Amino acid sequence: MSNLDDCLLKFEVPEIIHGEGSLAVVGECARRLGGERVLLVTDPGVIKAGWVDQAIKYLEAEDLKYVLYDNVVSNPRDFQVEKGVDLYLRKKCDVIVAVGGGSPIDTAKGIGILASNNGQIYDYEGCNRITQPVPPLVCLPTTAGTGADVSQFAIVTDTRRSMKMTILSRAIMPDISIIDPCLLTTLPEHLIASTGMDALTHAIEAYVSSLSWPLTDPHSIHAIKLASNHLLRATQTRDLSALTGMTVASLEAGIAFSNAILGAVHALAHPLGGLYDLHHGLINSILLPVVVRQNMEHAQDKFAQVARAMGVKSRGMEAKDLAAEVPEKITRLIENLGLPTRLSQLGVKKEDIPSLAVLAKEEVCMLTNPYHYNVAEIEHIYKEVW
Amino acid sequence: MSNLDDCLLKFEVPEIIHGEGSLAVVGECARRLGGERVLLVTDPGVIKAGWVDQAIKYLEAEDLKYVLYDNVVSNPRDFQVEKGVDLYLRKKCDVIVAVGGGSPIDTAKGIGILASNNGQIYDYEGCNRITQPVPPLVCLPTTAGTGADVSQFAIVTDTRRSMKMTILSRAIMPDISIIDPCLLTTLPEHLIASTGMDALTHAIEAYVSSLSWPLTDPHSIHAIKLASNHLLRATQTRDLSALTGMTVASLEAGIAFSNAILGAVHALAHPLGGLYDLHHGLINSILLPVVVRQNMEHAQDKFAQVARAMGVKSRGMEAKDLAAEVPEKITRLIENLGLPTRLSQLGVKKEDIPSLAVLAKEEVCMLTNPYHYNVAEIEHIYKEVW
Repeated sequence: MSNLDDCLLKFEVPEIIHGEGSLAVVGECARRLGGERVLLVTDPGVIKAGWVDQAIKYLEAEDLKYVLYDNVVSNPRDFQVEKGVDLYLRKKCDVIVAVGGGSPIDTAKGIGILASNNGQIYDYEGCNRITQPVPPLVCLPTTAGTGADVSQFAIVTDTRRSMKMTILSRAIMPDISIIDPCLLTTLPEHLIASTGMDALTHAIEAYVSSLSWPLTDPHSIHAIKLASNHLLRATQTRDLSALTGMTVASLEAGIAFSNAILGAVHALAHPLGGLYDLHHGLINSILLPVVVRQNMEHAQDKFAQVARAMGVKSRGMEAKDLAAEVPEKITRLIENLGLPTRLSQLGVKKEDIPSLAVLAKEEVCMLTNPYHYNVAEIEHIYKEVW
Repeated sequence: MSNLDDCLLKFEVPEIIHGEGSLAVVGECARRLGGERVLLVTDPGVIKAGWVDQAIKYLEAEDLKYVLYDNVVSNPRDFQVEKGVDLYLRKKCDVIVAVGGGSPIDTAKGIGILASNNGQIYDYEGCNRITQPVPPLVCLPTTAGTGADVSQFAIVTDTRRSMKMTILSRAIMPDISIIDPCLLTTLPEHLIASTGMDALTHAIEAYVSSLSWPLTDPHSIHAIKLASNHLLRATQTRDLSALTGMTVASLEAGIAFSNAILGAVHALAHPLGGLYDLHHGLINSILLPVVVRQNMEHAQDKFAQVARAMGVKSRGMEAKDLAAEVPEKITRLIENLGLPTRLSQLGVKKEDIPSLAVLAKEEVCMLTNPYHYNVAEIEHIYKEVW
């Protein structure tokens, strides 16, 4: 049975509601999932931008009680999940609403796990270790990139080991994701850029993943097209139509990677994020061109399709030459976005690379990369962009 | 609130499991949804093909009890739903498994509605009239076309009025759809052809629908590509790879139309199906080219994309000329499939056309067609293919 189960293809997506002003249905959605007492997970930046007040207004309009939990930072920590669970249980909450980027959403997922499963968050690292159903979760993403609002992934930092844990389970797929592009209008430019590069990375890694299939591929390709068309303008002008394009890119990239999983960029990014507390999208952005260059020969035809989706004129070109355009295109985009291109710019120490490479080799995302790099090859990749 | 709600875009998909041999997970899935006593809805043809015996084996392997309900015909009737509900309640079932084409699946949806909602099946005609959650539903489609296994639609014939009722509600979206391409190997060629044309119709209607959006479009376009590439070969050779291609075409077309709704082909097909008890896919196939020809000028750019997806070489062609290729392409495909091209071949009487046109004008699927035809125009369309 489990052998068969491994070779079957899966596709799961939360209920998605998209549109300007859709924040207004948050109360209705929490109520529809059977909620009466909401744990509202967010962070101080989102509160400051005014979106939490708005969300509360709509929760109250449905006569829902709520408790605010905003003890969340970028790269959420194990102990922040634990404190959130305490609050959830003490206040007898029965539904979780996350308003924010990947960090509040991943924190909310961690809280959900421990609210109905025993033990500690470390016990759930890896694939499918959650046995009890978790409380209902409604997400309102305020960034366009993480895909956490539609994925079965949660990334939580284990502070004992300074490591990012990947938790992957159908159980933590949110129930409803409400995507209101207006929420992106208060996002600083550099975060539009870096979370957007996260979306592009998701789409490319999901497309070349060994678990990609005809139901995930159209979303990957469309997300690559949308990010190529909208990311620069969204960052430079904050134009609502470009931001809306990026919300769909993020959604589709999230749908694709949640079902097809990821690859070497994420395998190399997670150890870095755990050790240095860096912004995940930024690390991905630095690693993406070099990993694509290494992966290229192992998935040439797929990278040729990526090139087409990125707008490379393909007439008369061989797949090999088309594929070779992808890292160039990505590099130019990153330069235009004004994002850093070297790990040393983020404070990564060269002497840490060997131990990072050992961790990256074992990362769950490496399993679905088109090629399984050994530790020496991973070190080489890190050094190339150091 | 309801005004906002109307302009938000939605995307909902059941959990999908796809692969050769996936029938084997049916027991595990029913069990995971909390089931202990299964109502197994199917039809005599599927039993004869041996798939029900196999399904039962996997239900028993999970220690599930089951009751068989096979009183289902093509274009399922109101009274068949009622008898199924009686059995469901009498045998204290708690989960429904449907094995078959659109008819057993729609019957199963109808049974689910009445198992937990009061009244008669007629009370639920139209949009969003179901108030109580329905029992869990696992679908195993044995055809590649209806999309009933992934859609929020159920079509049940009201025998008092000889009319097909369209029931449209999030509540009847199946929980899990298990797509095993092997189940298609026992399907007669003419059913591969006609259900495949149903899938192509779904994809095209969803793509040009006024509710289509960037999350449904990639699925519509990919479904059109897959059906164009695989339908003829699947019908002529029953080759498993072509059948597998058609299962994905059907899935993606189903995902697209469940979220973007349909158009005039379905609005005109449903009254015909209600009055004459004809095969839905066949009627769609006859109506599709003429409706596309009429719709073309109202969605020219979209039909140009449909042409590209169908393999029309687009270099240097204007959108208008590209769009004009679509009905020709469809007509050639239907001819190659050996399907009828006129309603008179199916026994439709010309004198019924005026009253059919009145019903078609009011059909819910007409609301999302790129143009709202009046009764005279609908009569004209029917007559053109009579």
